[in-house]
Amino acid sequence: MGLRETVPPAQGQAPRSQVTLDHLLRPLAMKNTAVLLISCPDQKGLVAAIADFLLRHDANILHADQHQDAERKLFLMRVEWDLADFRLDLSAFETAFRPVADKFAMNWRLALSAQRPRMAVFVSKYDHCLADLLYRHQAGELHCDIPLIISNHEDTHWLAEAYRIPFQHMPVHKDSKREVERDQLALLRHHHVDFIVLARYMQVLSPEFIHHYPNRIINIHHSFLPAFHGARPYHRAYERGVKLIGATSHYVTEVLDDGPIIEQDVVRISHRDQLEDLIQKGADLEKIVLSRAVRWHIDNRVLVYANKTVVFD
Amino acid sequence: MGLRETVPPAQGQAPRSQVTLDHLLRPLAMKNTAVLLISCPDQKGLVAAIADFLLRHDANILHADQHQDAERKLFLMRVEWDLADFRLDLSAFETAFRPVADKFAMNWRLALSAQRPRMAVFVSKYDHCLADLLYRHQAGELHCDIPLIISNHEDTHWLAEAYRIPFQHMPVHKDSKREVERDQLALLRHHHVDFIVLARYMQVLSPEFIHHYPNRIINIHHSFLPAFHGARPYHRAYERGVKLIGATSHYVTEVLDDGPIIEQDVVRISHRDQLEDLIQKGADLEKIVLSRAVRWHIDNRVLVYANKTVVFD
Amino acid sequence: MGLRETVPPAQGQAPRSQVTLDHLLRPLAMKNTAVLLISCPDQKGLVAAIADFLLRHDANILHADQHQDAERKLFLMRVEWDLADFRLDLSAFETAFRPVADKFAMNWRLALSAQRPRMAVFVSKYDHCLADLLYRHQAGELHCDIPLIISNHEDTHWLAEAYRIPFQHMPVHKDSKREVERDQLALLRHHHVDFIVLARYMQVLSPEFIHHYPNRIINIHHSFLPAFHGARPYHRAYERGVKLIGATSHYVTEVLDDGPIIEQDVVRISHRDQLEDLIQKGADLEKIVLSRAVRWHIDNRVLVYANKTVVFD
Amino acid sequence: MGLRETVPPAQGQAPRSQVTLDHLLRPLAMKNTAVLLISCPDQKGLVAAIADFLLRHDANILHADQHQDAERKLFLMRVEWDLADFRLDLSAFETAFRPVADKFAMNWRLALSAQRPRMAVFVSKYDHCLADLLYRHQAGELHCDIPLIISNHEDTHWLAEAYRIPFQHMPVHKDSKREVERDQLALLRHHHVDFIVLARYMQVLSPEFIHHYPNRIINIHHSFLPAFHGARPYHRAYERGVKLIGATSHYVTEVLDDGPIIEQDVVRISHRDQLEDLIQKGADLEKIVLSRAVRWHIDNRVLVYANKTVVFD
Repeated sequence: MGLRETVPPAQGQAPRSQVTLDHLLRPLAMKNTAVLLISCPDQKGLVAAIADFLLRHDANILHADQHQDAERKLFLMRVEWDLADFRLDLSAFETAFRPVADKFAMNWRLALSAQRPRMAVFVSKYDHCLADLLYRHQAGELHCDIPLIISNHEDTHWLAEAYRIPFQHMPVHKDSKREVERDQLALLRHHHVDFIVLARYMQVLSPEFIHHYPNRIINIHHSFLPAFHGARPYHRAYERGVKLIGATSHYVTEVLDDGPIIEQDVVRISHRDQLEDLIQKGADLEKIVLSRAVRWHIDNRVLVYANKTVVFD
Repeated sequence: MGLRETVPPAQGQAPRSQVTLDHLLRPLAMKNTAVLLISCPDQKGLVAAIADFLLRHDANILHADQHQDAERKLFLMRVEWDLADFRLDLSAFETAFRPVADKFAMNWRLALSAQRPRMAVFVSKYDHCLADLLYRHQAGELHCDIPLIISNHEDTHWLAEAYRIPFQHMPVHKDSKREVERDQLALLRHHHVDFIVLARYMQVLSPEFIHHYPNRIINIHHSFLPAFHGARPYHRAYERGVKLIGATSHYVTEVLDDGPIIEQDVVRISHRDQLEDLIQKGADLEKIVLSRAVRWHIDNRVLVYANKTVVFD
Repeated sequence: MGLRETVPPAQGQAPRSQVTLDHLLRPLAMKNTAVLLISCPDQKGLVAAIADFLLRHDANILHADQHQDAERKLFLMRVEWDLADFRLDLSAFETAFRPVADKFAMNWRLALSAQRPRMAVFVSKYDHCLADLLYRHQAGELHCDIPLIISNHEDTHWLAEAYRIPFQHMPVHKDSKREVERDQLALLRHHHVDFIVLARYMQVLSPEFIHHYPNRIINIHHSFLPAFHGARPYHRAYERGVKLIGATSHYVTEVLDDGPIIEQDVVRISHRDQLEDLIQKGADLEKIVLSRAVRWHIDNRVLVYANKTVVFD
Repeated sequence: MGLRETVPPAQGQAPRSQVTLDHLLRPLAMKNTAVLLISCPDQKGLVAAIADFLLRHDANILHADQHQDAERKLFLMRVEWDLADFRLDLSAFETAFRPVADKFAMNWRLALSAQRPRMAVFVSKYDHCLADLLYRHQAGELHCDIPLIISNHEDTHWLAEAYRIPFQHMPVHKDSKREVERDQLALLRHHHVDFIVLARYMQVLSPEFIHHYPNRIINIHHSFLPAFHGARPYHRAYERGVKLIGATSHYVTEVLDDGPIIEQDVVRISHRDQLEDLIQKGADLEKIVLSRAVRWHIDNRVLVYANKTVVFD
């Protein structure tokens, strides 16, 4: 591909201290569990059928959460169980579960805590979200691997190096965009990337690109959507004289800033806050909101339907 | 009893407007459902057994939420179903459910949305919480009956009259306290009161009184407990120079301000806020926090264990 | 005018309890102070000139707050002083202050705490904001008089009666709107109304009407503006799948939902919240946000410029 | 002293990207202003005297904020002005200002934005607060120098190296504590340290040590003080069943966890949050609360009196 790829000697948690926060979180991180995510038309007997199936194979259910959308007559469920006593080979899960799934026309997905998803981070010049994600990853808060950071600028290279994550500089110009996206896709495939985080990546992705990762590209928008979608939200919030500013993390769809919202939050501002203060207060908000969305996605807590999300907490 | 009881001609929603918020909430209010609250030692097969039992009698589950306390190996569940299709006579429920309950050593309780619990409100001179509860009740937000307001002062009599709720003035003096409590208990029994709300009632109840309503007396304390338990919390918060003030709603136990917490919230203050401002900002907080706790209690969303609550939301 | 006006025997705080929250607030309510609100081009010597003027007449400054808009080179100030020792007759204030005001091209306004502004409330069927305002007024939180409630429906009549405020039923039809507004204006003038609160008044006011009360009509919009301006904001918030809902209080201008924002706040929702829950949670928010805006307006804390507000807190 | 000191080749912002957030904040960071902090008995003429003094020397006031504590009859003020046109040599400021200060018995302090204060960070094993402070410093949010990180453990050494800040490992044992503190003080003096941040430093400092830095040691306590002061606050919050957890940043005084509070905040938790979740959610809170307190201290926004703070915002 002719791309220059910067790979530090060893990837991962090498520089990490021996005893940090992740020490405390280790019991959580070390857990060997399975998560089943289900959505289907609501009808009687669903919970009984699922609970019965899991019991038959000796599953020890750790968490179960379900939701009914009364209006759409939809049933959504997340159930997590310990694999220690589970007496069904996971390679045989699909075959064993199919009768249940077929009976209720389930849309389902099985995820294993032992299989860490692979996350690529796209970033431009603002580095606060990237720095936050890398710190959290290093501290054991995000149970994923980061095989790759892609940026259209060199500015965040030093951060990637500090945390020993491969960094790929891929500048984008108006007329090279299509080509660059093709190279990016090739690189993502090469690294077996499962999902992408746009950590203040200031390029609009093409529908073609997005189609390769449906509900698997997470963006952070620096406003309380749908207010101030599009460009320069802080400037427009300042102009409008709002009393709170917000940040929104959502899955990317073809329509700009219109995908399913995963998380939002706001912070109070006053007339004493100038545009610079909005940007600074907003940066803290962006970090928190994006990191929550990423963690929930990694922990298989997010279900998408009707351009909305259910976040099982 | 020799108590003077003020009963307005007609009790209830008489003065209410034809079309208010409760109009919108009517579908919720009108619902005919059953709620089963369960706590027991955690073990495999619990969910399957409960779901199976309900399915056998054709229950259409509307909401189900469960929680495991890993440390205490405890299982807690709230399940709500529509009674429309339910093919088990409720008078036979206990007999039918007993085998399941016995097998898993369940502590359980059945509640019916059609049976509105009966709430007594105790109040002293501060009337903001009482005014808020009466408005919400009248607007259809609180699915309960209010047969009685008891106060050691006359000050809130006008509010009781405006909302046509019986008001009982029962002054308390140091040496009459025991006797007054006996009269209060008689009155509560007479009115078949299910639970009591202390809406800024400035008298400490005796352990004897409390034992009659275990986990059925809801208090609002004007601080973020356990900070500033006891008297004059706003004064002490002001002295200490905290940057947020709080309010806490909890079940009353023998130990003052130490019962299971149902809800808490805080509001920001600054050096510009004098003691009067703390009291005013706090009053808004107290109203919100107490009304949430009362609504959750009425809707059978609160389970108590180990001096804590699980609030199924 | 041919309007039927319902005036209860005595207006005001008659039914109020002897000792409520306002007892505590009395020192605040009883205060005899003057507030000077100033906006002008920023330049050196402004603070010195104002402080010197007040000192010359022995003013005891209680609060002074100022703000500079660096971008617009604008100076804004609110200063409040005790009138006890003030040695300038207030009828002579304008003449005495004019030289200072002229030198700095000041836009200024003097307000006296002893002169309670007169507030009219417009309401339709939703009564939660009205009930909240009436309670707060009765409790002494809002230092204003309420000579009049105007509604296009009869639903809230009972609330007006409970709080002994005159209630005027003025139904609005498509073709009678202009005429009704003319009657409303006459009534407002007759009652010497200073400002109007639209407490969920579901009618759009004409530009002609609005021009009579520039920056003196306060509206509550049930969304986090500019998100979901216009009709049915809760429905649209539910559709969009936002994770927080908001409320906004603003001055009414000719452009719908576009006037200077006085206050905003939000509350968290989740997928478990149905449309009815949004409406109920939102109602609590509307009450809080509107009452804050009204109190700040009454206390002369709000300055408008460039379609924004400065709220001196 | 026999201490091994690790000094990386170049200190400071070396690895920083060319264009990050601090690029946007540069106008703020570059500003050349003076801040005057005043506290004194409240009396008439104070504001006029100060404003007049500044005007006489052609100060262009950028911000002025004042506060009166009515109860204690105290006047507190922060005024910031541009030094560009200021026609008083700063070396002559004290002599020139003394008559004003003496007349009103002022306690005052002058600070210059051009003089970056020197901050030392003390840390143990938890690294989240340190990582956050180092990132913010590097990004230009904290206008200070960091000559030194001191830790009783080696765990955070890598972070210091990543950000090129000197790191000093100084283990503490029961019987060496007094001696180590003496070495620490020597080191702090050697580096001309102005104030100290305890970024989760798990050692209690002696009164002797604290006396060297009165109101200049900032601690982060992982609870909403005064609730859960002392050891293991998250464990106790979990035990008590609170519905919100908090963090508090305060100046260190001789009484443990009792110094003047600079900032506090809380985050909501539920029964679904286990102890590990409290610790993780709390870590985010600690970072935000501590960084705000540190920034306000650096920007000379904090005034201490009566064991409280006024934060001029």
